[in-house]
Amino acid sequence: MTQNIYDETAFFENYSQLGRSVEGLAGAPEWPALRALLPDLGGLRIVDLGCGFGWFCRWACDQGAARVLGLDISQKMLARAATATATATATITYARADMEQLNLPCASFDLAYSSLAFHYVEDLIGLLNNLHEAILPGGRLVFSIEHPIYTAPRNPRWQVESDGRRTWPLDSYLKEGRRTTDWLAKGVVKQHRTIGTTLNMLIHTGFTITHVEEWGPTAQQVAAKPRLAEERERPMFMLIAAQR
Amino acid sequence: MTQNIYDETAFFENYSQLGRSVEGLAGAPEWPALRALLPDLGGLRIVDLGCGFGWFCRWACDQGAARVLGLDISQKMLARAATATATATATITYARADMEQLNLPCASFDLAYSSLAFHYVEDLIGLLNNLHEAILPGGRLVFSIEHPIYTAPRNPRWQVESDGRRTWPLDSYLKEGRRTTDWLAKGVVKQHRTIGTTLNMLIHTGFTITHVEEWGPTAQQVAAKPRLAEERERPMFMLIAAQR
Repeated sequence: MTQNIYDETAFFENYSQLGRSVEGLAGAPEWPALRALLPDLGGLRIVDLGCGFGWFCRWACDQGAARVLGLDISQKMLARAATATATATATITYARADMEQLNLPCASFDLAYSSLAFHYVEDLIGLLNNLHEAILPGGRLVFSIEHPIYTAPRNPRWQVESDGRRTWPLDSYLKEGRRTTDWLAKGVVKQHRTIGTTLNMLIHTGFTITHVEEWGPTAQQVAAKPRLAEERERPMFMLIAAQR
Repeated sequence: MTQNIYDETAFFENYSQLGRSVEGLAGAPEWPALRALLPDLGGLRIVDLGCGFGWFCRWACDQGAARVLGLDISQKMLARAATATATATATITYARADMEQLNLPCASFDLAYSSLAFHYVEDLIGLLNNLHEAILPGGRLVFSIEHPIYTAPRNPRWQVESDGRRTWPLDSYLKEGRRTTDWLAKGVVKQHRTIGTTLNMLIHTGFTITHVEEWGPTAQQVAAKPRLAEERERPMFMLIAAQR
């Protein structure tokens, strides 16, 4: 079972303070780039893997999705998602699920979406196999993960150079597997995989890669929030779109 | 026109001393991984972009290729390739070409191959468009380039940490474009592109990505040549296979 760090009190409290938790999709700087990879959602059957507070599910519903299934391992997040959605619509269903053992029904979705969750999954090939079964031919898989440059180092950190610019001391890039870091709480477990490994898993599962983006903030985003500039030195997120 | 650094005396002399120049394919540690991406060459019409001393062309010929066209911008390398090949076979043709302005005939090749040359090309999308025309439907494009983690930094170098392990201080990853470094000679110009940009160019040109590998040495290679171990900290090469 995937570590359920989101249900630990300290983590949940801290996570709830993040921009992306308070403001929703608008608080996630990579959202415009991820949204650009999505098809028109009108009439689609959608599954959101790692739905968190349900911000994407509600947005998809507003976009005219026919049915949205929001899955998460965190009971606290699902509870809040359900509360926020109660008055909205009956289109959305939330359910608890462990992505290590997902068993979605065959040919039941037009789009599988996931934001920053697959890097927690150890058996990614198992998950992708199930998604390939669950997505209809011609359907889409669109997801974001933490970039392997971000997850790789034994000691992830910025380093200030003599000219004041920052570098990201990279190591262990080709050593795949478990990484334990302290982010919002101690001992958060992630799975480090190279870009090649993730893409080859998609290809071997039967998906066709349609877009790969190593996300960085736009000039406008940096102007509005100068702190984001460092994200152009090394990418933190990777966005991938594939077709079934 | 691409910088023709290979014809500069100092560069050429130094390049000629490298393992991959003296020993050929066996002197390139990434060759076994690149070879694994190739189809059976028997009967194929092949173009090798940046053929250098012609090691791959001769090997392809030995594998039963029907016809091999070796292209390079360096007259010195072509001259040596022709000398080495003279007694071998009439299957191979060497010709001088600038990959910035390639104009291969339509539907004339089953395989386009390139080793460590595309990162010199500024107009990669132009080159890929020509290759997509030149490769027959179902044909392959297999190439290696320097990994963007390797090309990105303003000041590419290893850094020794307090525990003796090495890190690679990364920056400027999302700042694409020209990089000038001193390697074998001063002022070698390369083009830095993210992995996403290279893959999306292939996709938009009409290729289907079939394999992406961020190359690192195997345990056996490290055992035989311990100096290679550092290549597992950050990948130096990227190998890509695509289908037309």
